[in-house]
Amino acid sequence: MSTSTLSVGSLDEITFSVEDVPSVIEDYFFEGAEKLLEIWFDKNQGGATSLRSIPYSELVAMLDIARCHILHSRSSECMDSYVLSESSMFVSDFRIILKTCGTTRLLHTVRRILHLAKIYCNVDNVVSVFYSRKSFIRPERQPFPHSSFETEVDYLEEHFTGGSAYCIGPRRQDCWFLYTMVAPRAAFPFPEHTLEILMNGLPEDVLNVFNPSVSKDGKDCRMKSAINTILPPGIIVHEELFNPCGYSLNGLIPHSDHYIMIHVTPEPDFSYVSFETNQNTLNLSEQMLKVLEIFRPNKFLLTIFTNDLSNEGKEAQKNLWDLKICGCHRTNLQFLELPTETLVYAQFERAENME
Amino acid sequence: MSTSTLSVGSLDEITFSVEDVPSVIEDYFFEGAEKLLEIWFDKNQGGATSLRSIPYSELVAMLDIARCHILHSRSSECMDSYVLSESSMFVSDFRIILKTCGTTRLLHTVRRILHLAKIYCNVDNVVSVFYSRKSFIRPERQPFPHSSFETEVDYLEEHFTGGSAYCIGPRRQDCWFLYTMVAPRAAFPFPEHTLEILMNGLPEDVLNVFNPSVSKDGKDCRMKSAINTILPPGIIVHEELFNPCGYSLNGLIPHSDHYIMIHVTPEPDFSYVSFETNQNTLNLSEQMLKVLEIFRPNKFLLTIFTNDLSNEGKEAQKNLWDLKICGCHRTNLQFLELPTETLVYAQFERAENME
Repeated sequence: MSTSTLSVGSLDEITFSVEDVPSVIEDYFFEGAEKLLEIWFDKNQGGATSLRSIPYSELVAMLDIARCHILHSRSSECMDSYVLSESSMFVSDFRIILKTCGTTRLLHTVRRILHLAKIYCNVDNVVSVFYSRKSFIRPERQPFPHSSFETEVDYLEEHFTGGSAYCIGPRRQDCWFLYTMVAPRAAFPFPEHTLEILMNGLPEDVLNVFNPSVSKDGKDCRMKSAINTILPPGIIVHEELFNPCGYSLNGLIPHSDHYIMIHVTPEPDFSYVSFETNQNTLNLSEQMLKVLEIFRPNKFLLTIFTNDLSNEGKEAQKNLWDLKICGCHRTNLQFLELPTETLVYAQFERAENME
Repeated sequence: MSTSTLSVGSLDEITFSVEDVPSVIEDYFFEGAEKLLEIWFDKNQGGATSLRSIPYSELVAMLDIARCHILHSRSSECMDSYVLSESSMFVSDFRIILKTCGTTRLLHTVRRILHLAKIYCNVDNVVSVFYSRKSFIRPERQPFPHSSFETEVDYLEEHFTGGSAYCIGPRRQDCWFLYTMVAPRAAFPFPEHTLEILMNGLPEDVLNVFNPSVSKDGKDCRMKSAINTILPPGIIVHEELFNPCGYSLNGLIPHSDHYIMIHVTPEPDFSYVSFETNQNTLNLSEQMLKVLEIFRPNKFLLTIFTNDLSNEGKEAQKNLWDLKICGCHRTNLQFLELPTETLVYAQFERAENME
C-alpha cells in the first residue's frame, strides 16, 4: 500500500525532537508491516454512551496526528469502518481498532483517543489494550517512538499501567511484538478470537494484480486476485486500489462486530500482505489456508488470539498447532497465556528458501 | 551464594574498557541468578577424544577468565563435576555445562573453551549451544557483556552463527532469556530433557539453614533443609556452605551424564535458589513439586526442555502445562518449538503477593 499525499499532523499533539525524524530516504521503500492498536473501553461504566458518537471531524483530526486520513467509510448496525490512506480503522460502541502502515505515528493518537472517548462517550475506564506489530524491515526509518519496541512500550506505559510486553519469535530475525494490558477483574463474557496472517515475499503474478496498470479499481483487484472467494456472503466491503500501487479492503459482517481487513504492499522488493479477521461465520482454519493459497507467500506468520469462550478460536489454535503446509517448513511455534486470552503464534518459510 | 575471595582473570583474554566496569557498589547485594552455558561438541568428528582430557590447570585458567575458581570436584565414569566459588561446572566427553552467578564474566570463557576443545579433544564442530539466564535484579552491576541480553547475544554471535535469541515471559517484569544455536543437520539420537526451577523470595526459616551460624557444613545444610529427601539413591554429592552464607550442591548420578545442581543465595533482601537436573531416574514432575515444597518461594519460574525421544521430558512438559499449585497463581505460560527440542516455561507467584 502506498500513498502520494500525507496530511499534516497537529503539531500541538506531537512533541518530537530533531532526532526523531527519520533520515533522508535515499532509496524508495515502503514499510508494509502495520502497527495495530486495539483499545476496549468499559461498557458498564455509568453514563457511557458509544465511541460511534465521536464526530467525524474529530476522527479526522485524530488520524491527522498519526499522519493518515480517511478515504471512505461504511457502517453496519454495530460498527463503523474506515479505509485509510495507510490501512484501516474500525469503531464499535466500546472498541476501537486502528491499524496503520508505512511511517505513520500510530501511538501518538493514544492520548487523543482517550480524550475523545471521555468527551463524547463518557468513558475513561480502559478494559484492555493490545498493541502489536511485526518486526520492521527498516526500523531506522520509523518516527519516534516506533523505531524500537522498547520506546513504543515506554510510550504506552505513559498512558496505561499494569501491561506486559512480549517479543514472540527470535528477536533478531522475523519476530512479532505484543504489548497487552488487561485491567484487573476485567471479564469478557462473550467469545472473542482474532486471526492475523502477515505475509512476505509474494510471487510477482500475485502482486501484479494490485497495480492500476493491471486492475481498474479495488473491485477488479478483488475479483482478479480471488480475494472475493474468501469473503463470507453478505459482507459489506469497501476497498481501494492505490496509486502507484497497493490495495486495502475493509469488510463488515452485518449484525456483528466482526470485520475483515486485507492490506497489500505489492512492490516485489518489499512485498507484504496482511489479513486479519475476528469473524466466526466461517471455519477460521479453512479461511487461513485459502488466504495462503491466494497469496502464496515465501514467509508468513500466523497469530490466533482466543478467549476460553470461543470454541472456534480454540479449535483454530489447535489446528494451527498441528498445521503442516506442503512445501513449507515451520520455523517457529509459540504459545502464550495472557490474563483473559491465549495466543498461538507460528512462523513458516517455504522450503526452497531454506536450502 | 557468596564468596569472599575472587581469583584474578587472565587479562590477555579479556578486553574491556573503563565503561565495562560496574560502578562502585554502594549497598551490599549479590546477584544469585546464574548465567548458564551449555555447549555440545560433535562426537562424530574424526579424531575427537574427550573434553575430560582437558588438564585441570587449563580449566582453572579458563575459569579465571570468568572470575571464579574450583572449590572441589568429583567424577563418575561419565562426567567430572566441579563446585565453583560461584556455582558449578560439569564436563562430559562432549558436553560442557558452566553455570556461574554473581558478577562473573561467563561469556568471556567461550573463546577459551572452544580453544581447549580443539587442542585437547581434537574437536571444533559445535553441535549446539544454549545460553540462558533469568532477568537480573541489578543488570547495571553486571560486567560487559552481561548487563543486557542484547550485548550478550552480540558476544555469542562473534563465536557462533545461525543462533536464535528469545525473551520468554514479559520483558519488563521477571523474564528469562535464551540464546540457542543448533547446527544444521544436528541430531540427538538419545532422549534429552532438562528441568530448571528458579526461585525468589523465600521464607526466612528456609533461608536460615544456609548460614554457618545455623549449619556446620554443607552436609548439615542438606539434612536440615530436607534437600537430602529429593536426591536419588546412589548419587555422588559434593557441596559447599559458604562464608558468610550460601550453599551449592553438585550431584552426579552414576553410570550416566545426569546431574543435579542446587544453588542458594540466602540473604532475605535478594534470596534466590536454583535447581537444575537432567535426570531420568525419578519422576521429574514429582521432584519439581518436592523442590517447591522444600523452598516455598514467593515467585518462581520453571523451564522444561525436552527432545522428542524423551518420554519423561514430554510427560513433565505436559504436567507443567496443566500444573495447578495451591495458593499460587500462574502469571505466565509459554511454549516454544526449537529445531531439536521444545520448551515449556511457566511463572508462578504466591496469591497473597498479588492482592
